[in-house]
Amino acid sequence: MNIRFKNARILTMVEGQEIFEGELWVEGSRITYVGSAMSDEELSKMGKSFDRTIDCDENLLMPGFKDAHTHSGMTLMRTYADNLPLQEWLETKIFPLEAKMTPDDCALLTKLAILEYLTSGITAIMDMYLAPEAIATACEECGMRVVQVSGINKFGPSLEVFEERYLKLNGKHPLSSYMMGFHAEYTCDRELLEKLSDLAHKYKAPMFTHNSETAREVAECKERYGMTPTVFLDSLGMFDYGGGGYHCCHMSDDDFKVFKKRSLTAVTNPGSNTKLASGIASVKRFLDEGINVAIGTDGPSSNNCLDMFREMFLVTGLAKLKENDATAVSAADVLKMATVGGSKAMGLDDSDVLAEGKEADIIMIDLNQPNMQPINNIADNIVYSGSKQNVKMTMIAGSILYEDGKFDIGITPAEIYKGAKSIQTRLF
Amino acid sequence: MNIRFKNARILTMVEGQEIFEGELWVEGSRITYVGSAMSDEELSKMGKSFDRTIDCDENLLMPGFKDAHTHSGMTLMRTYADNLPLQEWLETKIFPLEAKMTPDDCALLTKLAILEYLTSGITAIMDMYLAPEAIATACEECGMRVVQVSGINKFGPSLEVFEERYLKLNGKHPLSSYMMGFHAEYTCDRELLEKLSDLAHKYKAPMFTHNSETAREVAECKERYGMTPTVFLDSLGMFDYGGGGYHCCHMSDDDFKVFKKRSLTAVTNPGSNTKLASGIASVKRFLDEGINVAIGTDGPSSNNCLDMFREMFLVTGLAKLKENDATAVSAADVLKMATVGGSKAMGLDDSDVLAEGKEADIIMIDLNQPNMQPINNIADNIVYSGSKQNVKMTMIAGSILYEDGKFDIGITPAEIYKGAKSIQTRLF
Repeated sequence: MNIRFKNARILTMVEGQEIFEGELWVEGSRITYVGSAMSDEELSKMGKSFDRTIDCDENLLMPGFKDAHTHSGMTLMRTYADNLPLQEWLETKIFPLEAKMTPDDCALLTKLAILEYLTSGITAIMDMYLAPEAIATACEECGMRVVQVSGINKFGPSLEVFEERYLKLNGKHPLSSYMMGFHAEYTCDRELLEKLSDLAHKYKAPMFTHNSETAREVAECKERYGMTPTVFLDSLGMFDYGGGGYHCCHMSDDDFKVFKKRSLTAVTNPGSNTKLASGIASVKRFLDEGINVAIGTDGPSSNNCLDMFREMFLVTGLAKLKENDATAVSAADVLKMATVGGSKAMGLDDSDVLAEGKEADIIMIDLNQPNMQPINNIADNIVYSGSKQNVKMTMIAGSILYEDGKFDIGITPAEIYKGAKSIQTRLF
Repeated sequence: MNIRFKNARILTMVEGQEIFEGELWVEGSRITYVGSAMSDEELSKMGKSFDRTIDCDENLLMPGFKDAHTHSGMTLMRTYADNLPLQEWLETKIFPLEAKMTPDDCALLTKLAILEYLTSGITAIMDMYLAPEAIATACEECGMRVVQVSGINKFGPSLEVFEERYLKLNGKHPLSSYMMGFHAEYTCDRELLEKLSDLAHKYKAPMFTHNSETAREVAECKERYGMTPTVFLDSLGMFDYGGGGYHCCHMSDDDFKVFKKRSLTAVTNPGSNTKLASGIASVKRFLDEGINVAIGTDGPSSNNCLDMFREMFLVTGLAKLKENDATAVSAADVLKMATVGGSKAMGLDDSDVLAEGKEADIIMIDLNQPNMQPINNIADNIVYSGSKQNVKMTMIAGSILYEDGKFDIGITPAEIYKGAKSIQTRLF
């Protein structure tokens, strides 16, 4: 389907480009034009016609948000066990329940998360969860862009399955890819980590993991290995081909050096870190050191929502509190993290900005809502005042999956809610 | 108009009452029934009929949120001057602009804020701004419940005007009242404060003010008077009839004692305190000491939005970070602050909970949005996952002012946006 968006404000997120008024064309899955407005005459001269023309009414088009760390299937446990610190929450509540979840459960619960991503303008997720094959299929069926990351740990799966999935789930579908990763240093033994490092070298693959999320995790790693998680993992060669860490709240000077040297991405998860009292990441320092920063919601059981607007406000707000400086981490920096920073981490160079030839992963921000009026600084306002209510449309690879509150993902919300309820009845 | 809400989940916020399934009636401005479902036969036996019956589809009815500290008219300056610390922002950007605003400007800009309050389920505001007469009229015209608080300071108005407004704006309209207050210790001289204390005694009136928002403010007060703002103001008898403080981020042990002794309310404003890097209020300690806590958005120029959901998540999230304890300040406590805590501060005993005879200030929370599914703990989830997108309806004094994204406040959003733009053009 070829779609013309006219009468739009456009924030391309191309470095140095300001918001401008104009139009954008999508043909198939790609953007074929982003620029100044065209008259009907010009279009007819070019022999250009579209299946649909959308009058944006001066609303804003921008790249979709990239949620660079999540566990979609954890929608099941949303508010199932709140008000607990991370380790206790994981060990006593989450792991026992996850042991009972089937691949079909994961697929349905991922679709529930997809509904929520779409309401928040999230067009790609970096997902770590059980049953990657089922999750890939669920995302493909819905039209969601997904970069899965292995969450291997000492409880499974085997290294053979890990490698098999890496080979099988890459190149299978244009919306879906798979990256190397493991759950965390504290859930893997040294031998497993060494073998994972070997595989990273074998495939020249970047490696992602939960890293330095809590002070306890760092202290225990130092006790075990005499090093912080970052330094220890790097000493195994784990990051020789890049990658990154989720959370990164408790970082030493040496940890920052490793991130810089290996060009790692720090994926910050402020909602989850806040709710679990894990700590505040030094986002300002990551930026100052030139380290790529991306933003993740984390899973809906620790957050408890998949809302990039909440995360964006928290990224800048917590930085301001931490640094005791109202100018710390600008809204412009945050928008960059939520779009191109995520793309960089996830290997999505084709859907990072709005430009000709790029994948059409686009959202429309409703500026005709009261929280966006009067219009002063639109980009700042998305970060400081934006909410899911401002997401008028979410398009992935040229398909409109969410528009004016309605979903088009091949299954209705009611069917998904019913499925989630029946899983809940069976497992709780 | 008499309205029956049937097939609802109901969270009354009456102490000790759990969410139950049932129905609620509104007749005129009041709630006339909250309880279990009635059959059509029972209703006809009672001779009961309604102008409108709303099938809630198992969505949740609860009391509207009380925004216990805001400056509505500051919608004009939303993202006009971001990334500045409080004092510099006020003195170099805000005050010069406010000097040029007319009462008509304030009225229109308040209406813009009202649109936003309604989208966030806010049914009453404690507003401190210029031109109280115009603001009262604007709120009355829209059907918004407003408790204005004087922001008198050394630049104006006179004490005569202050007293005249106090007498004139109370009892004028059922939706509108006026409480005593002043801007802050640091914008008033001692003589003015003493005279304000006299007026508090004359009318046995509670007194509200910005209090201990920044560390600088506290340090400067100590330099001036050898006391913290709270202790100094209390030494003048300012709180002999109660009242409270906005922000309260930097409190000494003695300050907590004053709040307890005088039964003051601490109104916490975490969005604004975060964005301006002012600090984190000790909400847990307020609760532990039995001090009433309410929540305010602060004005849209320092926040930058009027979104009770963001504030609620921040209240609990920042408390968890501050206390390094994921169990600190429960979601149930936060919901109480956002409803009955606010009512208590604002003198709105008639619209605090859903019960027969109370004013019908009611919101409907859409549980059929993905961020509320599957349903585990609804009350927790409103705080941890809720957003403006979940506000399906906002009713004040029996009138539905917002429903399914549409407003009914006697003026269209487009007219308000146009008005705000023309003020912007004139003043910026």
